Amino acid sequence: MKNIAVILSGSGVFDGSEIYESVLTFLRLEHNGVRYQCFAPNIEQLHVINHLTGEVAEGEKRNVLVEAARLARGDIQDLAEANPDEFDALIIPGGFGAAKNLSDFAVNGVDCSINEELVSFARAIHQAGKPVGLICIAPAMTPKLLGSGIQCTIGNDEGVAGAINAMGGQHQNCGVDQIIVDQSNKVVSTPAYMLAGSISEAASGINRLVDEVVKLA
Amino acid sequence: MKNIAVILSGSGVFDGSEIYESVLTFLRLEHNGVRYQCFAPNIEQLHVINHLTGEVAEGEKRNVLVEAARLARGDIQDLAEANPDEFDALIIPGGFGAAKNLSDFAVNGVDCSINEELVSFARAIHQAGKPVGLICIAPAMTPKLLGSGIQCTIGNDEGVAGAINAMGGQHQNCGVDQIIVDQSNKVVSTPAYMLAGSISEAASGINRLVDEVVKLA
Repeated sequence: MKNIAVILSGSGVFDGSEIYESVLTFLRLEHNGVRYQCFAPNIEQLHVINHLTGEVAEGEKRNVLVEAARLARGDIQDLAEANPDEFDALIIPGGFGAAKNLSDFAVNGVDCSINEELVSFARAIHQAGKPVGLICIAPAMTPKLLGSGIQCTIGNDEGVAGAINAMGGQHQNCGVDQIIVDQSNKVVSTPAYMLAGSISEAASGINRLVDEVVKLA
Repeated sequence: MKNIAVILSGSGVFDGSEIYESVLTFLRLEHNGVRYQCFAPNIEQLHVINHLTGEVAEGEKRNVLVEAARLARGDIQDLAEANPDEFDALIIPGGFGAAKNLSDFAVNGVDCSINEELVSFARAIHQAGKPVGLICIAPAMTPKLLGSGIQCTIGNDEGVAGAINAMGGQHQNCGVDQIIVDQSNKVVSTPAYMLAGSISEAASGINRLVDEVVKLA
């Protein structure tokens, strides 16, 4: 049975993994009859956002792995312990956590760096010819995560698209219900909540992404 | 367009709303073409559970409304401000938050009490002849929330079923993909993660529950 690694970045759109995108990913993986295992880095979140007010919760600290465990009902492992040989593919849902915790793209833009454990794991998957699926804002990491010249999408935001291209990526505009597939690199991406106005809209692209990643695995 | 109130109790199975059950509820409400609005009480959580270890995070405090906002992408209101006249039905997902924050059933069992704002809102919905849907452990509140003699299910856990009956309820055993409908009281319940071993299994009952609540609304 195919085994898919899903890397989370917390639990909540403004400072972690986007909850709906993550759950839709899990549900579609189940529908595909494959196994999956969640991972997250055992690091402190960049910050905690009060999701009621949208403001930073000053002085509050939370751990990415501990919060991501909420999204996995406790069934999650430290990314540092992930063995790429055990997995056939990798999927990273969106949410600001991808740009604040897995990378610092939200702070440093084109000068961003990416969590080293994530780079190590993702490159091993990629270099073994296994597919990588990136959702929402997560594809902004593509050039620095996997290398330059790879097609990907974050929808149609000109600022983020320009940053991806400036880092060496090849951004393609894409509708919420569509995916961009870089066939030669086996990289699949979809805009999800970069464009979605509802859970169903997010699902329309995420379901395609998961199906394609599983097919390529 | 029908308008459904969804009352959350935090964000995370062990101290708040069960995330998958909540998202599946929202998704199915969307599929039914109805509107919904999330609410949560503006109170402190009973405690915070580290979802990685399952242990209580000593000294940590979180607010139910603020954490539930993560599950609603910020689109949530204080339960104290909910006007039952504006809604055609009520759904309460499960997770320990229903038994720790919305009520103290997890602590006090048959001697439990229920959040007064929730009682006030739910009784107004119920007494107006509008349906109430209760998922997972939330149906344990049925007798004290809505009155005695109402059929409901939490699956087949003898301890919880006995407590429901002792409080004046009428527990019915039920499979994970089924619902119990008390037609005369318009109360619908399903076991979800009281029995589910996967998100798809939880969805099989939750989808039926949402469809039935919308039909009765």
